[in-house]
Amino acid sequence: MPFYQYFNGDIIPIDQPAFATNDLGLLRGYGLFDYFRTYNGVPFRWDDYWQRFENSARLLKLQVPISQNETEKVLADLHALSGEQEVAFRFVLTGGYAPDSVNVVQPNFLIKTEALPQDNPAGRLKGIKVLPYQYVRDLPEIKTTNYVHMVLMADEMKRQRAADLLFYKDGEVSELTRSNIFIFRDGKLITSNRNILNGITRKVVLELAEAHFEVEVRPVFYQEVITADEVFTTSTTKWVMPVVQIGDELISDGLAGKRTLFLQELFEKLVSGWGK
Amino acid sequence: MPFYQYFNGDIIPIDQPAFATNDLGLLRGYGLFDYFRTYNGVPFRWDDYWQRFENSARLLKLQVPISQNETEKVLADLHALSGEQEVAFRFVLTGGYAPDSVNVVQPNFLIKTEALPQDNPAGRLKGIKVLPYQYVRDLPEIKTTNYVHMVLMADEMKRQRAADLLFYKDGEVSELTRSNIFIFRDGKLITSNRNILNGITRKVVLELAEAHFEVEVRPVFYQEVITADEVFTTSTTKWVMPVVQIGDELISDGLAGKRTLFLQELFEKLVSGWGK
Repeated sequence: MPFYQYFNGDIIPIDQPAFATNDLGLLRGYGLFDYFRTYNGVPFRWDDYWQRFENSARLLKLQVPISQNETEKVLADLHALSGEQEVAFRFVLTGGYAPDSVNVVQPNFLIKTEALPQDNPAGRLKGIKVLPYQYVRDLPEIKTTNYVHMVLMADEMKRQRAADLLFYKDGEVSELTRSNIFIFRDGKLITSNRNILNGITRKVVLELAEAHFEVEVRPVFYQEVITADEVFTTSTTKWVMPVVQIGDELISDGLAGKRTLFLQELFEKLVSGWGK
Repeated sequence: MPFYQYFNGDIIPIDQPAFATNDLGLLRGYGLFDYFRTYNGVPFRWDDYWQRFENSARLLKLQVPISQNETEKVLADLHALSGEQEVAFRFVLTGGYAPDSVNVVQPNFLIKTEALPQDNPAGRLKGIKVLPYQYVRDLPEIKTTNYVHMVLMADEMKRQRAADLLFYKDGEVSELTRSNIFIFRDGKLITSNRNILNGITRKVVLELAEAHFEVEVRPVFYQEVITADEVFTTSTTKWVMPVVQIGDELISDGLAGKRTLFLQELFEKLVSGWGK
C-alpha cells in the first residue's frame, strides 16, 4: 500500500508536495527532525524519541504544534494506512512560513511514514569501514536537519568503500554522521559525552551494558579509538555495528569484536521481543 | 499582481507548494541559494550573481539544471508576470529528491519572485547596532541555506535593538549573517578576505573605493573593528550600511562615518543609473 504523511493537521499521500516555498526549513535550514521505527508493530522507545524531539524543538525555540498523545494517534493512523507490519517514522519540524525569511511565526510539522531501512546484516557481522573527518556538528545537542557534510562526502565514501564518517576535532572524537561511537579499551566500555547527539540506541546500549562491563562516559580521543580493542557505533538503523577500519587503520585484527557482538545480541534480543 | 515562481521547468503561483517532502534541502539542509534584485527593471550585476550561484553549486557538487541564458528568460517571464517595475529574485538549488535520504540524484531548482525588501533608510543615515557573536560559517564560500544562528538569535537581536550579528572567532572577524564587513582605520579601507561569502556588493564597493582610498583585503581582527574610525557592512539589501555600535561599544562617536556615507553615495549613484 502507498504510504501517507501528516502535515499540519492533514493526512496526505506521501508524494504530495506539502511545503510552500517560503518555509524556513527550506530557505534557512531552520529545521529539526527525529526518526524512529516499530518492532512488532510498536514504536520503539517512543517516550525517549518524543522527549528528544521536544528537546530539539525547545533548543531551536520552536513550539511543537500537537501533544505527544495527539501525535501518537497520528502515528497509529499512518501505520494503519501503510498496511505494513513495521514502519519507520520521520518527524520534521521547521521554522514555518516566514514573510521576511527570518522570523519564525508558526512552525510546520511533518510526519513521514517510511519503509524500514536496509538492515546491512553483513555489516553487523563483519563490521564497517569509516573515514576520519575533521568536523564537529554545529549545535550537536539538537537534531537539526544540517547534514551537508554527509551528503557532500557520499561519493567519496562510496569510492573508498566506507560506510560513514567519524567526526573528530582537535584530537577528540565526537560521533559519526548519524550515530554514536563506543570503544572497548583496557577492559572498559567507553563512549563520548560531548559534542554529540544523545542517541536513543546509545542510551539503550548503555543500559544493556551496565550489568556486564565497567562503563566510562567521557571525552574520547582519536588516538584511543584507533588503538582500541573494539570499536562500534550505535543508531536506530545501525543497531550495534562493529567498526573495523578507520581510514587506513584496522581496529585490532580488523574483525568484529566479541564484546561488540555480545552487545549486539543483547540489543537484538530486546528489539525482537519489543511490545510482546 | 500576485507573484509567480519557477520550479523545475514550470511557472506556478508563488504560494503553491512545490517540493515533495523527500527533498534533501528540507531533510538534510543540502541546499544553496542566491538573491539579487533589479534597478530600473534590470537585474543588477547579473553575471556576477550567476557566477557566484554556479560556484556554490559546483562546491556542493550539484548540477545547475538550466543554462544562464535559459535562466535569463525565466527571469524575464517572472518579472513580466509580477507587473512590478522592480523585483527581487531568490534562487534555491537543493540536492533534490533522495530515495535513501542521502545520495543526490537530481537537484531541484526554484526561482522565487519577491517584493523588494524594506530599504531601512534610517539605518543608512544613522547606522545600525550589531551584536558580536562567536561563530564562523561552515563552508563560508558557499551560499548554503544554513542560517540557523541568525534565526535562532532573531528575538535576542530585537530585544537588544540590534540589526544583525557580527561573526568572529579566535579574535578574527569574518562577516555578518548576510553581509560583509569593512572598516576605515589609519586612513585605509580594510575588509576581511577569509571565512566569508564573496559578496557582490562587497565587490562593487571595492571597485568604487579604488579611486579614492588605499584598500587592504586581509584578515581583520575584532580589536581593529571596535577601535576603527568607521565601520560599515555591505549587501544586496543593505547597500553600504554604517555600523555604529557593536554590542555595548560605540564606533568612534557613534555616528555614521563620512567616508562610509561617501561610498554609500557612490553606490546609490551607480544603482540609480543602472540599466540606463
